[in-house]
Amino acid sequence: MFKTKICDILGIEYPILLGGMIWVGRSNLVAAVSEAGGLGLLGAGGMTIPEIEQDLQEIREKTQRPFGVNIPLVRPDAEDLIQASIQAGARVISTSAGNPKRYTGKIKEQGCKVIHVAFNVSGARKSQEAGVDVVVVEGFEAGGHNGVDELTTMAMVPQAVRAVDIPVVAAGGICDGKGLVAALALGAQGVQMGTRFIATHEAAPHPNVKKAVLEVPDNGTCITGRSLSGPTRAVRNKLSERILAAEKEGASPEELMEMIGEGRSIRACVEGDCEEGTVYCGQIGGYVDSIKSAREVIEETISEAKSIIESLQGLLSQ
Amino acid sequence: MFKTKICDILGIEYPILLGGMIWVGRSNLVAAVSEAGGLGLLGAGGMTIPEIEQDLQEIREKTQRPFGVNIPLVRPDAEDLIQASIQAGARVISTSAGNPKRYTGKIKEQGCKVIHVAFNVSGARKSQEAGVDVVVVEGFEAGGHNGVDELTTMAMVPQAVRAVDIPVVAAGGICDGKGLVAALALGAQGVQMGTRFIATHEAAPHPNVKKAVLEVPDNGTCITGRSLSGPTRAVRNKLSERILAAEKEGASPEELMEMIGEGRSIRACVEGDCEEGTVYCGQIGGYVDSIKSAREVIEETISEAKSIIESLQGLLSQ
Repeated sequence: MFKTKICDILGIEYPILLGGMIWVGRSNLVAAVSEAGGLGLLGAGGMTIPEIEQDLQEIREKTQRPFGVNIPLVRPDAEDLIQASIQAGARVISTSAGNPKRYTGKIKEQGCKVIHVAFNVSGARKSQEAGVDVVVVEGFEAGGHNGVDELTTMAMVPQAVRAVDIPVVAAGGICDGKGLVAALALGAQGVQMGTRFIATHEAAPHPNVKKAVLEVPDNGTCITGRSLSGPTRAVRNKLSERILAAEKEGASPEELMEMIGEGRSIRACVEGDCEEGTVYCGQIGGYVDSIKSAREVIEETISEAKSIIESLQGLLSQ
Repeated sequence: MFKTKICDILGIEYPILLGGMIWVGRSNLVAAVSEAGGLGLLGAGGMTIPEIEQDLQEIREKTQRPFGVNIPLVRPDAEDLIQASIQAGARVISTSAGNPKRYTGKIKEQGCKVIHVAFNVSGARKSQEAGVDVVVVEGFEAGGHNGVDELTTMAMVPQAVRAVDIPVVAAGGICDGKGLVAALALGAQGVQMGTRFIATHEAAPHPNVKKAVLEVPDNGTCITGRSLSGPTRAVRNKLSERILAAEKEGASPEELMEMIGEGRSIRACVEGDCEEGTVYCGQIGGYVDSIKSAREVIEETISEAKSIIESLQGLLSQ
């Protein structure tokens, strides 16, 4: 056992959430994480409603346990996505990149739980005011979409925990039991891990993407899109160097959007081109060095967390 | 008791180091931190040799416990500063902003310990190769000088711990027992705190600087100097907004250096101008909300750490 407040709220065994990852967190991974006692979240960002319905049906065939869908609220069809997800069996809706207020009531009315991803204390407060059940605060070190305030997990978690009464989940820079215990020490009630789950057998992307995560060094990721106020973290490659150079030279938003765009993620995750495609990856990718099953990731995280807590006790009994 | 490996190496009671802070960590604060069981480090960055000697003499009059000096190796007179510090009684030399190899042997020959501040895994490895006793890895969330790789404490500490055999101390985003336990969980043997100690009675700067730290919100700091490859984190103010705007417009290094420069720190810390001067401050400044004595900071950090470890045990005994 290793239960925190969020386990009862979300109906899960361990306080570990799968980050919603476009082209990565598809049915196999979501089902595997939920079946192993965590909360699987479908990365629905780039998916159509029929694709989401198909994935959720596959998940239901693989697990009886709760799972959810992560929906970026910037999508104009966000409301339809939410409704389709709930009708297809999602018990949790995780929203990000937008104001949680608009949909929270409707989701909760249908007996589902709402998680919102925030990037600063004010975002955590707004999540609470919107009636969200659990707020994920995601640090600057995380892969994928990032906050403009560049707040790190270590600095932000205690500030968010102090600011709200709802449970806080830490995201960014966490891949194992060390990160889980650190997050709990900071006052979080659990962790959300993305990058660690890219390097699993069940993750959807092309093997080249998993290989890129295994090989990335500590300083091998970078932020692009700062000049667009839409920063994202990914593996440094030919594409990111080109975008960074264009940003430095003051390229227009239109020019940059042409270089970035959603197709770049497909190019890496589906086609396997990790130089001209975008490989979203957090700084903790530098620590991830083997492909495991989602169950191994979760069980080893919990078992490492337990032994760390035991060894911390040694400090008290000197 | 709350001893880790670094306590025996540095001859201290608690694994808490004072970050070397220019115009902040002067004799009163250094002596108070050491006397309370931590390791006080004089922020010698902007000081002349006679000033350093004077401060170290004052420290020796206030405490019998070990203390040290932080010396940025970019100073052309770094070697003289090191020698003067050792002769004036420093037992530990903390070096930063340069290659630790050049002076480590000479410092250790004289029976002193060497700490080096690194900002990535390769810096931690180089510190070990240079024979350094303890390496501090400092995350992106920290105030003052920052690493170009923008690695955060949460992501970098486990990677550094895995890469080297010497003890690692975590810095950046830490101001209390929560941060200490998080750092220990990540594999660090202690913490270095800067921002927390600005808001102490013994810290040297103008009261306006302490007030600025108390008032800064979570997202109230920013990085300037990225375009110079010399990033520093400080409180957002009129000066930082002007520098950021100039950097965005592609100002030359000369133009920027004129806006930045060492005088800006004096302007805030000595003259109390927190709009046109630089108030170095980490992201955790958003959590710091009261001025305490250095002893209170240290004792409360240890006592909070102990109760967190005890409450983490509860997770194992469910």
